[in-house]
This record gives sequence, structure tokens and C-alpha cells, in this order.
Amino acid sequence: MNAHFDPTHGSALRLPQPYLLFLADTVDAGFAKTAFGLRDWAGDKCVGEFAIGATVSTGLPVMTPAQARAAGARALVIGVANSGGVIGDTWIAPLVEALEAGLDIVSGMHARLSEIPELAEAAARLGRRLIDVRVPPTGLRVGTGAKRTGKRLLTVGTDCALGKKYTALALSSAFAARGVDVDFRATGQTGIMIAGGGMPMDAVVSDFEAGAAEMLSPDADPDHWDVIEGQGSLFHPAYAAVSLGLLHGSQPDVIVVCHEPGRTVMLGTEGFATPTIEEAIALNLELGARTNPAIRCGGVALNTSQLDPDEAARLIAAESERLGLPVADPIRGGAAFDALVEGCLK
Amino acid sequence: MNAHFDPTHGSALRLPQPYLLFLADTVDAGFAKTAFGLRDWAGDKCVGEFAIGATVSTGLPVMTPAQARAAGARALVIGVANSGGVIGDTWIAPLVEALEAGLDIVSGMHARLSEIPELAEAAARLGRRLIDVRVPPTGLRVGTGAKRTGKRLLTVGTDCALGKKYTALALSSAFAARGVDVDFRATGQTGIMIAGGGMPMDAVVSDFEAGAAEMLSPDADPDHWDVIEGQGSLFHPAYAAVSLGLLHGSQPDVIVVCHEPGRTVMLGTEGFATPTIEEAIALNLELGARTNPAIRCGGVALNTSQLDPDEAARLIAAESERLGLPVADPIRGGAAFDALVEGCLK
Repeated sequence: MNAHFDPTHGSALRLPQPYLLFLADTVDAGFAKTAFGLRDWAGDKCVGEFAIGATVSTGLPVMTPAQARAAGARALVIGVANSGGVIGDTWIAPLVEALEAGLDIVSGMHARLSEIPELAEAAARLGRRLIDVRVPPTGLRVGTGAKRTGKRLLTVGTDCALGKKYTALALSSAFAARGVDVDFRATGQTGIMIAGGGMPMDAVVSDFEAGAAEMLSPDADPDHWDVIEGQGSLFHPAYAAVSLGLLHGSQPDVIVVCHEPGRTVMLGTEGFATPTIEEAIALNLELGARTNPAIRCGGVALNTSQLDPDEAARLIAAESERLGLPVADPIRGGAAFDALVEGCLK
Repeated sequence: MNAHFDPTHGSALRLPQPYLLFLADTVDAGFAKTAFGLRDWAGDKCVGEFAIGATVSTGLPVMTPAQARAAGARALVIGVANSGGVIGDTWIAPLVEALEAGLDIVSGMHARLSEIPELAEAAARLGRRLIDVRVPPTGLRVGTGAKRTGKRLLTVGTDCALGKKYTALALSSAFAARGVDVDFRATGQTGIMIAGGGMPMDAVVSDFEAGAAEMLSPDADPDHWDVIEGQGSLFHPAYAAVSLGLLHGSQPDVIVVCHEPGRTVMLGTEGFATPTIEEAIALNLELGARTNPAIRCGGVALNTSQLDPDEAARLIAAESERLGLPVADPIRGGAAFDALVEGCLK
């Protein structure tokens, strides 16, 4: 890849679509989360699935790479993971088959596609691209803090891994359903595959973190919204740098704070207490005001997956009353979620 | 280098010392700042200088690479910069001469040593190292936030480029002069060359920023101090991510806030006002408390290079009175600086 023209130089990643979803030999649905996420959130960009012995299925049409190419597919996406994030030996022949059929390959695995000699050789011979979505584009710039046109919403969290991507996707869909001109802006590997582009913020060199976020959501029409997937948490002792660079560079007009009731310790730490929702609102507004003094909190997204429906509804109502803000679980939707959407757009 | 054993894997950089300072063909002293900084702050680690037509001099003995090797030198350091950060064609033969004499090469230039074929070939043939101090070590880990033993001081700033490195060096020297067991911990290229090691924090991938700072200042004896060179500013719209990761990972017991009176706009930005000293103290203490609840401000370092001695003395006294903290210009030293040192150690 290095010796070729890089279409992502100086801009966010852009992926070839639509996709053929590769399920490999996966027998555990938990390892096919990427494929299921793409089916659920980017179903119109997926022409079919392709497997070599998998027992899981997305329900999409089964196709060979050549059939998928004939149906319009531009890339094969590795839609599965395994415990080491490695590309199995038995996957290589079908991946070469996809390259030969005219498909690029998109991967979010830890292993780099270009470091597998058979794939590198075939891609070079055929003029195909091997795209690792964990690898940032080249040509990143340092941030300027200059105000950009258009409107921006960023999902932020009291912690990692509690629904920032899902909330951003759900808000983007709801905005679009109301006729709002909106783009979902992805910052992690699954989100990037769903959106067909984005910026892998956690893999960007620190000096360019805010600048990369600026590139991810460029100037837009005054009524256009970018809904930006958050990363990490300002309160996390490992990942706050990612969160602050993303907050400064996104210069959001609106934040939505994502929280999981009952989580008391920050993910992957020993003894770091999760902040309260109020603390998370206050610190994100305080720091975000540096690049957008008009920043405000549009509401709170609760991940109530551990609660039964009645408990969830009671908690959502009580938290909304307590905080004086719209509160909803985007997965449960309903009137509470409509109120959250309105709270963001008002 | 990639195919060889990497002695820095999983730890901070460590450079071979002592040095031979390479001045190349430099005629403008401003471009020899690295060499002068090494002479001033690491003079006992510099055996001599080597030039190919330079008119500037550090005053150290003039030596060939072979003479320097015989005098104990382990590495040639490129002690100069030019406007593009490039390694000139006329430099290559003398650099190969240094490799052949048994010296490694250390560079902080933008251009990578290993990407110059003649140098890469000679280093591989001779078993020598080409060390770019802008390149982080391999094997970085994500942060844990776990409390480490020993004491830590971090210099922080209202802005970039106003004396955080100089303040940390001066405090380290003053601690040592008082018999305190202390290490200067470098986070930028010049500091790393002075210290003979460190972590280029602005070049670390964001996900590892706090973890890299944790690796830079490991567990130590209870009375040992790490004095850590700060980077950027929490208030800078481009670089705050670097500053927050460094703050969280350093978990300082004491911060010293560095400020340049009269600077009103953040470096490299259009219209971002510099914060007040009080704002910088408050935000660094607020965010630093996440990983060290006992964090406190030891005082303020003013860069008064734009003032005459009387003006500087009056301002230092007035600011100390106003803030209720020790305030000093480390370059001017004196009783005010002694009070700052005592304020940090108390």
C-alpha cells in the first residue's frame, strides 16, 4: 500500500461500499458481532454473506465473491473476530479469491492485512486495496480550534463501553427520520465500517488527536448535523487523552452523556469509581467550552440492559426528573427517546 | 532496526552516552540550539564536537569520530536543525564515518535516519543503532492508574513553549544540590537527549498516552523524586490531549505552573486567549486529582525574559503576594527560586 496513491491522505478514511460480509468459519455468534452490527446499521450497504464453514448467519443472501462483485459489491469485510484478532491460515485462500474477483478487503482485526505476504502480493498484482480500519489515514494535521460551520453532537460517557456508538447511531437515525440533514461520524472500527468511513481516534498520535477530530467533521451547511461517536471518558485514567482531543476537535454544540446504571468501577481499572452523571455533564461542558463556548447538554442516554422494562421505565423517569433533562435508553426508544431527540435539536 | 532486538521494548527510551556533538555545516547559532542545550545541561556527557564547515562552536574539544570513540563516546548526536528538519546530503559521509568508528547515531530531526539508504546499510553492516528520539519505544501499554511509589513533580503550562523543560531541569538540579534523590524525566526530543532517555509524549498513540507516562516514571523509593517535563497545555485546542494523558499518567504530587507574562494568545492559534495562572492551577489540580487526590501546586515559574531585571523582580514579588504561592523565574534564580524549590519539597 505504501508505494501507491493513498486516497485517504489528508482526510478521514473512506471505505469502498457496498460490502460482502465474510463470516469465515465462525460457530459462535459472539465472534460475529461486526457482521451483525453491519447488517443492523448498514443493511443497505451489504449485498450478502460469504463463509467457509461458519454455522452463524446474518440472514443475508449467501454469495461467492464473484457473485457479490456482479451484485455491485466493492469490498469484502471481515465480519468476525477471534480471541487473538488474528487472520486464520484457512482464510487466506478465500480472501485471495475475493481480491481476484475485484473486491478490496476491509479489516478491523489486530493483525495487519498488508503483513500477510499472500494478501500483499495478490493485492499488488491485482491493484486492489487492503484497508485496516485501525490504521489512521496519512496527512493528519494539528488542530487549530478554528470554528467550523454546521452543527455537531458528540456522545460522551461516564466510562468506556456503555453505549456511545449505539446512542450516536440511534440519534443519527432519529434525526434523519425527522428530515434533518445528518451524518454519523465514526471514531472506532465498527462504527467506521458501518459509516463507510471515519477516524480511528484511539490509534491517532496524540499531537494530532484534536486535529484528526477536526478533519472528521469538516465545515458543513448551517443546518447540517454531524453526530459524532464518542470514545473513552474524561474520567478514565487510561483513555482521557483520547476523549479530550475528540471533545476539543469536535467542538460540539450538544453533548449527550451516556451512562450505565449500576456500574461503579471504571472498566479495566482497580478502584477508580465511575463519576456521577452530573460530574460527567459538568466536566464535559467545562472542557468543551474551550472550543465551543455555546456547548450544552442535550440529555442523557442510559444503558438499562441489566434492568427489566418496568424498572427501566421508572429509573428513566426518575433520572429525568432529578436532572431536569431528557433521559432515555436508545435501545428501548419510546416517548422518552423522542424527548431526548427533541432536547438535542431544540 | 525492525529486525533487530529493540532494547527499548516495553520501557522508556535509553540513549547511548556520552555523546559527540555533530554541528554539520551550521553558520547560524539559532540552528545549533540542541548542541548548546546538551553542553549546558549534559556537559559531563559530551566528549567533544565534530563539524564539516560549521562556524558555530560549543567550545568543547574538536574531535573526529574515531578520536571521540577513543575518548569514550558511544553516540554521535545531530546537534543542529535546519528549517526543514532534513539531513543534508553532505552530512551522510561524516555520519557513515561515525558509524564506522563505532558510534551509534541519535537524531531529533523530522527526517528518519533509517529511511536514508546509506545510513541504514552502514548501520546494518556494522551492527550500529540509528535512534530517532521522535519515535516512541515499542511495547507501550495502556494506563492502569495504579498508584506508584516515590514522589513526582510535573511542570505544566498556561501555553506551549514558555519554559516547562527549562523549569524541570532547573528544579531537578536544585533538588540534587539539596541532596534529594532525583531524576529528570524527559518528554520531548531535546529533553530526551539531555537526560539520555525519556518518552516522546507527543508522538505516542493516544490510547497509550497515559500508559506511556506511567512507564516513564516507574515505582521508586519513597523519598525519590521524578521531576517530569511537561508538554503542551490543557487549554491548548491542539495539544490538550497530550497534556491530559501526561498529567493522568504522571500522577504528580506537585505541579509547578509555567507562564509567560504578556502572552495573551495561545501559540499557533487565532484568538484563543491564554488562561490566567489561577485558571491553570485550578484545572490541573481538578483533573490531576483523578489519579492523585493529594496533588498540590508547589508554585509558579515565570518566564520573564521580556522584562528587565527590576521589572522582573517587582512582578515576581507581586505575583507571589497575589497568589499566595512561591513564584520565581528559574533562569534568574535567586532567593525567589530557592523559595519555589522549598515550596515543592515541603
